[in-house]
Amino acid sequence: MCTAAVYKTKDFYFGRNLDYEFPYGEEVTITPRNYPFSFRFLGERKQHYAMIGMAHVADDYPLYYDAINEKGLGMAGLNFVGNAVYGEPVLGKKEETAEEHEREAGMVKGSEIDNVAQFELPLWLLGQCASVKEVRALLARINITNTPFNERYPVSQLHWMIADREETIVVEAVADGLHVYDNPAGVLTNNPPFPQQMFRLNDYRSLSPKQPENTFAPGLELASYSRGMGAMGLPGDLSSASRFVRAAFVRGNSLSGDSEAESVSQFFHILHSVEQQRGCCDVGGEKYEITIYTSCCNADKGIYYYTTYENHQITAVDMHAENLDGAELFRYPLVQGEQIRWQNR
Amino acid sequence: MCTAAVYKTKDFYFGRNLDYEFPYGEEVTITPRNYPFSFRFLGERKQHYAMIGMAHVADDYPLYYDAINEKGLGMAGLNFVGNAVYGEPVLGKKEETAEEHEREAGMVKGSEIDNVAQFELPLWLLGQCASVKEVRALLARINITNTPFNERYPVSQLHWMIADREETIVVEAVADGLHVYDNPAGVLTNNPPFPQQMFRLNDYRSLSPKQPENTFAPGLELASYSRGMGAMGLPGDLSSASRFVRAAFVRGNSLSGDSEAESVSQFFHILHSVEQQRGCCDVGGEKYEITIYTSCCNADKGIYYYTTYENHQITAVDMHAENLDGAELFRYPLVQGEQIRWQNR
Amino acid sequence: MCTAAVYKTKDFYFGRNLDYEFPYGEEVTITPRNYPFSFRFLGERKQHYAMIGMAHVADDYPLYYDAINEKGLGMAGLNFVGNAVYGEPVLGKKEETAEEHEREAGMVKGSEIDNVAQFELPLWLLGQCASVKEVRALLARINITNTPFNERYPVSQLHWMIADREETIVVEAVADGLHVYDNPAGVLTNNPPFPQQMFRLNDYRSLSPKQPENTFAPGLELASYSRGMGAMGLPGDLSSASRFVRAAFVRGNSLSGDSEAESVSQFFHILHSVEQQRGCCDVGGEKYEITIYTSCCNADKGIYYYTTYENHQITAVDMHAENLDGAELFRYPLVQGEQIRWQNR
Amino acid sequence: MCTAAVYKTKDFYFGRNLDYEFPYGEEVTITPRNYPFSFRFLGERKQHYAMIGMAHVADDYPLYYDAINEKGLGMAGLNFVGNAVYGEPVLGKKEETAEEHEREAGMVKGSEIDNVAQFELPLWLLGQCASVKEVRALLARINITNTPFNERYPVSQLHWMIADREETIVVEAVADGLHVYDNPAGVLTNNPPFPQQMFRLNDYRSLSPKQPENTFAPGLELASYSRGMGAMGLPGDLSSASRFVRAAFVRGNSLSGDSEAESVSQFFHILHSVEQQRGCCDVGGEKYEITIYTSCCNADKGIYYYTTYENHQITAVDMHAENLDGAELFRYPLVQGEQIRWQNR
Repeated sequence: MCTAAVYKTKDFYFGRNLDYEFPYGEEVTITPRNYPFSFRFLGERKQHYAMIGMAHVADDYPLYYDAINEKGLGMAGLNFVGNAVYGEPVLGKKEETAEEHEREAGMVKGSEIDNVAQFELPLWLLGQCASVKEVRALLARINITNTPFNERYPVSQLHWMIADREETIVVEAVADGLHVYDNPAGVLTNNPPFPQQMFRLNDYRSLSPKQPENTFAPGLELASYSRGMGAMGLPGDLSSASRFVRAAFVRGNSLSGDSEAESVSQFFHILHSVEQQRGCCDVGGEKYEITIYTSCCNADKGIYYYTTYENHQITAVDMHAENLDGAELFRYPLVQGEQIRWQNR
Repeated sequence: MCTAAVYKTKDFYFGRNLDYEFPYGEEVTITPRNYPFSFRFLGERKQHYAMIGMAHVADDYPLYYDAINEKGLGMAGLNFVGNAVYGEPVLGKKEETAEEHEREAGMVKGSEIDNVAQFELPLWLLGQCASVKEVRALLARINITNTPFNERYPVSQLHWMIADREETIVVEAVADGLHVYDNPAGVLTNNPPFPQQMFRLNDYRSLSPKQPENTFAPGLELASYSRGMGAMGLPGDLSSASRFVRAAFVRGNSLSGDSEAESVSQFFHILHSVEQQRGCCDVGGEKYEITIYTSCCNADKGIYYYTTYENHQITAVDMHAENLDGAELFRYPLVQGEQIRWQNR
Repeated sequence: MCTAAVYKTKDFYFGRNLDYEFPYGEEVTITPRNYPFSFRFLGERKQHYAMIGMAHVADDYPLYYDAINEKGLGMAGLNFVGNAVYGEPVLGKKEETAEEHEREAGMVKGSEIDNVAQFELPLWLLGQCASVKEVRALLARINITNTPFNERYPVSQLHWMIADREETIVVEAVADGLHVYDNPAGVLTNNPPFPQQMFRLNDYRSLSPKQPENTFAPGLELASYSRGMGAMGLPGDLSSASRFVRAAFVRGNSLSGDSEAESVSQFFHILHSVEQQRGCCDVGGEKYEITIYTSCCNADKGIYYYTTYENHQITAVDMHAENLDGAELFRYPLVQGEQIRWQNR
Repeated sequence: MCTAAVYKTKDFYFGRNLDYEFPYGEEVTITPRNYPFSFRFLGERKQHYAMIGMAHVADDYPLYYDAINEKGLGMAGLNFVGNAVYGEPVLGKKEETAEEHEREAGMVKGSEIDNVAQFELPLWLLGQCASVKEVRALLARINITNTPFNERYPVSQLHWMIADREETIVVEAVADGLHVYDNPAGVLTNNPPFPQQMFRLNDYRSLSPKQPENTFAPGLELASYSRGMGAMGLPGDLSSASRFVRAAFVRGNSLSGDSEAESVSQFFHILHSVEQQRGCCDVGGEKYEITIYTSCCNADKGIYYYTTYENHQITAVDMHAENLDGAELFRYPLVQGEQIRWQNR
């Protein structure tokens, strides 16, 4: 499955682990401002914000897994299997013909409905919004539809973490409509839905990076035999519920210098604390889920950093090193294999 | 604190995390065959096996934290504070004058006693032994003494993991003498003593990389809502007890191709599963324990790989790229800072 | 807080722990068929099913905590603080004037609304319904109101478990309306809401009363050093979330003979597995929550069994030993203090 | 398996759960002062302290599971399968002929060896010792032998908790000799050996009966949604390791009035917190371990209280109600079946 996180020092960082049993041929992809988008229900956009992220490019269309735009807004889609529910496209203004649907989706009465296919959501939001505040406004009138990209790509069941340096939200389209949640934990994994994930953190409120006081029973002396005992009880397995708690703890207590190198380094340490090691998550058929890649975007500077399972070195692509007024995608195949630095040969 | 691990594909790999709140100025250090050692109680050795490892070099003396020798034997010392007990030097043959001591130390009667200062142990064993079997023979007559290196370096309280491709052992000098344990888990952390660490694994025997069966109660349907639920209960905190269990699980289930790159990559994933993120282990005084470096030795090829907290790229030093018949140490300061590879600038 | 449970052998049993820091002066109370009830919004009922349960009787009015009626229907109210939301009374038919409210409460359009004060719910349902099926029909048109019993008794925030021998349900009035849930676990505690409690059981699906297989890692032998290791991971604290899991496990695996004595005995063992011992739940001000009483109703025979914290002996009151056609309450103060049987004095 | 505990208010209380899949025909048994004992290696004792406890009486010989003597000393034997190691009988003074054995058993040189068959230990110690201090003196010269009671009764693998109102100790005869441990936790279960059980308590030192502080991460608000969250992490299963922690927590935090009824009541609540419910510990062959009986001795007053799995009422036998100068056992078969008190029939 996956984990996303945000981190802030001088700059704002946004990234994710993509966990799966095989890669889809993803590439770091820059979409410049004049690359035209044709939306299924909302016409063509000739101009939009430039963005950089990890995408599977199909028929010249960047299907982004995670990306940031030039305004510092980040967005990542994570698996949400069994919970995501998208609607059929709805026509007309909301108050006139779409009353039934509107109630489900919690949309504002009287406004137009924006039908956006599930796969279009990153382009729709990152193309137009400079902030989470602007995202909220667009989501208030959206209908996320179950329209597939084409017959070969079934609709993905996803939920999304969207963030700028001011706030982080989670967007979930479920059976009772579309929900937009504030995310004070700054992380997202997969099932169960976000409110339940957040609620479970309550069970871990006594955990701490500090050594715990001995409060077990009056008069019974008990030792601190190791450093780091304050977080005993933190779950260590790879399920989405356990990764949520662990990532929230590591992220919430993270400390680093605020230079670019120190910030990026710490960000990868956060996400690697919940990475999936090959062999530890058996999905049957001799297949194993691993962390295919980990990304870290400097949302202020437009830089996309990544590591892959087989390459520990951090690789980077700088959005601003390209002509963002162009009309063609810039695509960077992932550097494959360990890039080992030899000190004596 | 620390974690050590072994891994075997085509070749045999041995390495460790060094966790602490500041570095000691360690360097990758090759000791060639003719670098003379002067032991405190056992005279001079002019020739010995060559070795490579991480060492603090003091007065031209390599104080190894972890190393392998040219025969494929690896050894790492890990903190064992509060449990390690070393003896005073003992003179003479064992059966004559050292009866009392001998009983404590479990030494074989009638043999000479080898007094070895605690800090000399890596050189003593890696210099002479081609295998764990040979190590066992030397340990049968050893008295590890509490002799300090000099007045500025207090004696470290350590225990050791020693391994070749055939077997892995743990050596602990405690109040009731010296113990040598087989280590089927292939990992070591810190407190409590090894037999207790191994015993605690029993509590986790039902964990698995596979999705668990539902056996909670007859007739009660319960869902697998996430992949990776088979290891729920695996501890995720940074205490030595929890790291032992987690490292044993990840190592024990690890799978990789057997090429050098794939093996080394997987080894770092194993040790990074128990790394310490800055901020998560508060040791007081605004100091935080982190994983200062992670090492992975190819014991067959004599290559020392490492990452540091601030440099995710794997760096390597090849023992056989140097003249191993030399008489001077080869020292490689650690590459510092993130080595980021830019794809478009 | 509290725990409720059901159990079935030849007969059907229903009961609960009442956990609190002091008693309210509760008594076992039989309400015969002709004891008149005056409902706040729904007029007087002169005749109804007889019932027996634990009640605080105020101004001759039995405020039941838990009860069964003569038809074998049981009901218990449990604390649900912070989640329970009751409405204002609503007049008229639903489709005409109460559209807004109706939507929230999920009521069926076109039917009359039954405004029932929260404290009236046990009498309203147990007085009229012979089965959970009939309860469901009444709940479809109910509006549970926030009307207090009187100025001295604030409205209790509760949710309810209701059961007959065929099925068990949970009723929760929360911010988004009234919910009726099937309860396959057969237990109820307090927060969080029931769907979340049920969902959390998924995390424990691998637990079992049987000794677990060793699946930790290939080739690593790990021992079963104790009986009962199959449920390692079952929570043992007194929080409502942990009691839910533990009670569900014990109840779901319970075995007993089907005689009255064996069934009742086992039922008390189930509920005592989640009882609160004095000193273990400190609620501040030198007050401690304890299990004030535990009840077990034979719903088929109309017998109310109970133990109290200070009296381990089971005491019983038989509904059918009284004239159920009467018009006055039968009240039995709880037997106080340990009733010890002496074998030799 | 089993759990033993001590508790002190005005008086001193000592008792245990006996957990097994079937009873052995045990009875409360008073051994008066002049009931003659014939020890296998140590001759006959015509006079000794009187004692009361639970015993299986075989051939007129009381095989005590747990007992107290008239001086207020209590003792209970608990299963210790796989760890208990008893010796062969040893003749002569220790320094002359038993040197080898002596070293194993840690006995004092120069004293006589007391060979005591494992089944004789309760009579040997309770018959002669008025305090734990006196017990320690006897244990310093003991050799617990593997001599069976007869050919039908194999030697039980046990360890023992022994206590008076001043101190509690645990006695374990294992491979490396006899160990006597102070027991500040005041409870004992089964495997692993006592020092490991005590050490594991360290992992739970942050648990508390109080609501925990929120220390999860700076700035992240997390709720206390239930009372009793301070002990989240306390294990709730029936394994010996988990029962040890849970019993230590409940006992260590227990509070009660100091009257006899309140003290006895609280004591049973302590031990019932770790009782085994039928169905929850499957030992194979459709057999289930249950808590066959729970005992609570007032060691000051010589009263033996008990409950059984099928009888929740506390039954009592008073040692001082009998002629303790007698020469015949007083035997009280356990009261069987629920003793229900009817309030209205």
